[in-house]
Amino acid sequence: MTTQRDPLDRFFSIIPAGGIGSRLWPLSRASAPKFLHDLTGSGQTLLQDTWDRLTPIAGKERILVVTGKVHKSAVLEQIEDLSTDNLVLELSPKDSTAAIALAAAILMNREPDVIVGSFAADHVITEDEQFHKTVREAVLVAATGKIVTIGIEPTEPSVGFGYIKSGDELGVTGAPEARHVIKFVEKPNIAKARKYVDSGQYLWNAGMFIAPAALLLEQLAKSEPALHASIMELAAEWDTDNRKAAIEKIWPTLKKVAIDYSVAEPAAAAGLVAVIPASFSWHDVGDFAAIAELQSQGRRGNLAVLGNAKVLADSSSGILVSDTDRLIALIGVEDIIVVDTPDALLVTTKEHAQRVKSLVDALKATGHSDVL
Amino acid sequence: MTTQRDPLDRFFSIIPAGGIGSRLWPLSRASAPKFLHDLTGSGQTLLQDTWDRLTPIAGKERILVVTGKVHKSAVLEQIEDLSTDNLVLELSPKDSTAAIALAAAILMNREPDVIVGSFAADHVITEDEQFHKTVREAVLVAATGKIVTIGIEPTEPSVGFGYIKSGDELGVTGAPEARHVIKFVEKPNIAKARKYVDSGQYLWNAGMFIAPAALLLEQLAKSEPALHASIMELAAEWDTDNRKAAIEKIWPTLKKVAIDYSVAEPAAAAGLVAVIPASFSWHDVGDFAAIAELQSQGRRGNLAVLGNAKVLADSSSGILVSDTDRLIALIGVEDIIVVDTPDALLVTTKEHAQRVKSLVDALKATGHSDVL
Repeated sequence: MTTQRDPLDRFFSIIPAGGIGSRLWPLSRASAPKFLHDLTGSGQTLLQDTWDRLTPIAGKERILVVTGKVHKSAVLEQIEDLSTDNLVLELSPKDSTAAIALAAAILMNREPDVIVGSFAADHVITEDEQFHKTVREAVLVAATGKIVTIGIEPTEPSVGFGYIKSGDELGVTGAPEARHVIKFVEKPNIAKARKYVDSGQYLWNAGMFIAPAALLLEQLAKSEPALHASIMELAAEWDTDNRKAAIEKIWPTLKKVAIDYSVAEPAAAAGLVAVIPASFSWHDVGDFAAIAELQSQGRRGNLAVLGNAKVLADSSSGILVSDTDRLIALIGVEDIIVVDTPDALLVTTKEHAQRVKSLVDALKATGHSDVL
Repeated sequence: MTTQRDPLDRFFSIIPAGGIGSRLWPLSRASAPKFLHDLTGSGQTLLQDTWDRLTPIAGKERILVVTGKVHKSAVLEQIEDLSTDNLVLELSPKDSTAAIALAAAILMNREPDVIVGSFAADHVITEDEQFHKTVREAVLVAATGKIVTIGIEPTEPSVGFGYIKSGDELGVTGAPEARHVIKFVEKPNIAKARKYVDSGQYLWNAGMFIAPAALLLEQLAKSEPALHASIMELAAEWDTDNRKAAIEKIWPTLKKVAIDYSVAEPAAAAGLVAVIPASFSWHDVGDFAAIAELQSQGRRGNLAVLGNAKVLADSSSGILVSDTDRLIALIGVEDIIVVDTPDALLVTTKEHAQRVKSLVDALKATGHSDVL
């Protein structure tokens, strides 16, 4: 398809607001997941921060949120400027391909030349101007017929992220740092992670993708034809009176697959993916230890305090997250993590922050899903 | 005074139920002090355990409880068999001399030859039969005109207790282990405590005193004549219609002084005190670390659990005390102390258990007395 519009005028952001954030239990719940919380002490939730970060790029009319239908009222309450036209409600979690491809297909039906950019609702990005600059460059590259990802310069050999192996420079005007992507690799073991980081060729995959909707869906059609067909069928009914019937019929049948597998990896193999290294700082707030690092407000000595708890801390360090108004007293505990909510309390240490996820799995297994 | 009654028939127990137990905050409060709680997992409170331990000695009609008037309903609820005739309510805390001497004077007015024994409401004693045997021996010795204390064989050089220096055997028939008391010494430093324990001459002062009421009050008259006079004046009105007026007039004027200073030390100096080494195990449950040791029920691996919390503990050790029905998850925390109450949460470690008291002082100083 040929188009005369400036690439930046074609841009539309998608915010997939999903994922429970099990490692942040009991603060983050199925009913109130990570993106609905203020995890940085900014006074805004991660979703609100994400929204505010995206609005300067193409305006608040050009952001679409995909979330679970159980979060509808919370999302609309937090994002006053979000029109229901730009809110896609999932019947149930179906992983990232369904969310992003449906959003892309709906937007493409409205504007065939749309370039979409997908940005998670629960990541922390500072240096907004650098973020805008990087996204604008990505849009320019996407307009040349690429699926563009924004890669994060590794600060450590993390085994918690997938990696992007970058190749030669692309040489796109206005996007001097854009490079070919040779391949995506899954979360490595520590030895491989060290090699990746030492090579200087690898970036973290933060799940940010910018691409013409048509190109993204074309790739999906090749790798997951059945899923693509269902998505297109549902998108075709979206802006009609048949939406409800179509979603109830089609949604439960959709395959659960991450967009990394369904689109990014096969497109990279076909030489269609580019990467721009992020010039901004990024954090996925994976666990409570991360919150302790991000939390700049509300420090009491070496203790980071999130929430409105009355706190009395005597030579303690770590993080205290409070979702109640109880008085919390800490004495002589180091690198502690205390998360206090009305119906559940977690006490662990920064060292064990990653184990919260397996605890949540154990809670599921022992019939405590009322607190999940 | 001469009397023909068998010493054991003259015996009457006094339970001073006072003391907040600051080291057990936030479980123990001014409004719900230590003795009103089950701290051993026995299913009964410390007060109930104390009551049940004393009833076999002289019957449930011969136990008098002294407590704050704010605890009246809680005490009567916990001790169904306590008649209000045997309940002495303090207007305000006035330390142990006022409590015990008033009780002794009231009982002496009812039975001039009464032998009283005072036993704290918030200590843990196991081996009830040994306790009964020791108390009966103490009563026999008291009947010879002694103030008798029961001393605890030190298990470690504690700096948390006062010590009793014992002398020669008394040679009282039926009480072969009774010895003279040379003196009482205050809580020592660790070096002195080690000397005391190594000498084999010293016992811990657990605050148990058994004596003819008349002798006890006679000693008080010598060391604290004004306090003695006030106590006698109040006791004289106790079983009359003037009780309320008398207590309101006299109580606020009473001097605060521990019975160790007002009676035990001067009586020892006068050669009037005897000691019987306890043949039972005793614990004053001084802090949460102590609870961890005492708690035999509700263990989850190395974690002692007190209360009805739903607990999920992953490789954690220490003690969890719960006064709520919240789910509590512990991951990888060692020697931890977590005390969860509806309006306050404490997290510390066994090592710092003694510091809870200074935290309570800090709470007072910072205007948080609503949770004290």
